[in-house]
Amino acid sequence: MPLSEFEIIHQIFQQQKVERSDVVIGIGDDAAVIDVPAGFELAVSTDTLIANVHFPEDMKPKDIGYRALAVNLSDLAAMGAEPAWMTLALTLPEANNVWLKAFSSGLFRLAEQYDVQLIGGDTTRGALSITLQLHGFLPKGRRLTRSGAQVGDGIYVTGTLGDAAAGLKCWMRNEQSSVWLKQRLARPTPRVETGIALRDLATSAIDISDGLLADLGHILDASHVGARLNLANLPLSLAICETVELEQARELALTGGDDYELCFTVPEDKEDEVIRLGDLCQITMIGRVEAEPGLRCMLGAVEYTLSDQGYQHFS
Amino acid sequence: MPLSEFEIIHQIFQQQKVERSDVVIGIGDDAAVIDVPAGFELAVSTDTLIANVHFPEDMKPKDIGYRALAVNLSDLAAMGAEPAWMTLALTLPEANNVWLKAFSSGLFRLAEQYDVQLIGGDTTRGALSITLQLHGFLPKGRRLTRSGAQVGDGIYVTGTLGDAAAGLKCWMRNEQSSVWLKQRLARPTPRVETGIALRDLATSAIDISDGLLADLGHILDASHVGARLNLANLPLSLAICETVELEQARELALTGGDDYELCFTVPEDKEDEVIRLGDLCQITMIGRVEAEPGLRCMLGAVEYTLSDQGYQHFS
Repeated sequence: MPLSEFEIIHQIFQQQKVERSDVVIGIGDDAAVIDVPAGFELAVSTDTLIANVHFPEDMKPKDIGYRALAVNLSDLAAMGAEPAWMTLALTLPEANNVWLKAFSSGLFRLAEQYDVQLIGGDTTRGALSITLQLHGFLPKGRRLTRSGAQVGDGIYVTGTLGDAAAGLKCWMRNEQSSVWLKQRLARPTPRVETGIALRDLATSAIDISDGLLADLGHILDASHVGARLNLANLPLSLAICETVELEQARELALTGGDDYELCFTVPEDKEDEVIRLGDLCQITMIGRVEAEPGLRCMLGAVEYTLSDQGYQHFS
Repeated sequence: MPLSEFEIIHQIFQQQKVERSDVVIGIGDDAAVIDVPAGFELAVSTDTLIANVHFPEDMKPKDIGYRALAVNLSDLAAMGAEPAWMTLALTLPEANNVWLKAFSSGLFRLAEQYDVQLIGGDTTRGALSITLQLHGFLPKGRRLTRSGAQVGDGIYVTGTLGDAAAGLKCWMRNEQSSVWLKQRLARPTPRVETGIALRDLATSAIDISDGLLADLGHILDASHVGARLNLANLPLSLAICETVELEQARELALTGGDDYELCFTVPEDKEDEVIRLGDLCQITMIGRVEAEPGLRCMLGAVEYTLSDQGYQHFS
């Protein structure tokens, strides 16, 4: 019985090196069977990436594979969960072996870094679309959510903001200059270790996929509070400052999506402990939670108003 | 802040009536959080349905929603698992509220029947595609797999075979006559209760999604055995016999996909116990496992050879 092209795909995805002892049945039966350790709950995230919507069509397949897992890892990081297993629903116009090997190598490279095993999925024919679902562990009752921010909490972000949006602009203009910015778009860094370290520290957390203002807005809505941001403190990379004007860099930092950094809140009396997390990645305090609803962006004593272009993302 | 069309989708999917106590965090945070009961493992299945590949484009959205869950329930049934939670990755060309309400009503109707809660997912814009992932419980160590069939075991199937493939033929020819056959395609019956009852009885099980010969072939391969089928015993519905010639009905039963019945093997000394499962659904013995590799289809004493059309599915 010769192999169909979709059986060949299957074989590619069975070549992963990660073999976890808590996977009872992996790829190859009607369903996977997994064993959650005692004392843990399971966090489950799902993200679909569509060509030309969630990534440029000419992005390297290796990067598409990496990115598909990175955005899901980022969701788990925002819950404080430790990644464990993934399933992949892959829809392809045709089974192109070169594409598939590159895609799986990018996916598996990041998966190995976090000991994530591919346990199953589905391969179908159609317009290119990647749905990845990720499972991770949370010690019972120690999850991070969007709804716990308290008045007086400091507001923090990891890394630098706006790079992915600036990278996308460069991509669209076909500019060769800013490899680093494009890399921030193609291979976002999920803040898994930071998320785990925040379990006992943060009152709320979210990952920045739609832009800081939109995602911080979800925390404020869920927590029934408002906030004041100090825009002078927004962490901007050297690369973004060399590529666009300061004002545009700030607007990309506020409204550009795809950063996959974490935004979180910490009570004032625990702020010293946040500084220690700086060993894991850059962490910057950008504002404070207030009782008054709404989000006020301050530049010194002046309230800052975004340009029309900025507003369309969040108003 | 006005709602985007994809926030409206979100609201439609938050209207489900099922509220399980083991869902710690449902729709609305970065990830769902769920609690697997002590003593149980988790079975996970994923299926993608693409318009015009996995269902006719003009299938009613209510049926598409129903069918998306039914095919996943069928995978869990084949493992002997009890369904619990689902996530939905839905890609749509546009957010059409009439379509969405009908789709979700079909999905939720079947979900309520099995107490399955929608805990999260992703909605994106693109060609219509539905990826549903289902989680279910298995008492530790009591899963059904494809690999345990033993020489001498009886081979059984639930329900009747070939109806969905016959229904698809009617659909393509736009025949009004066979509503029942088309219903078998649109709303397959997942054999969840039978799968659970088989946990301590069957040595192997699979659901018939690609046709009996292909799927039984997976059991034989995984179990390193062969089999002999008695084609006179193939369970055929009255409707299929009224619609096509007997020989074609047999070929559809052997090679037509989309039946979502179970095929399973049971040791000879437990065959009396299988009869009792007839209270749950029709169950028919169709053959026996043999040591000699390969699959022999017998009609009386004569080995039956499929037509060219039949062979293309499995040779």
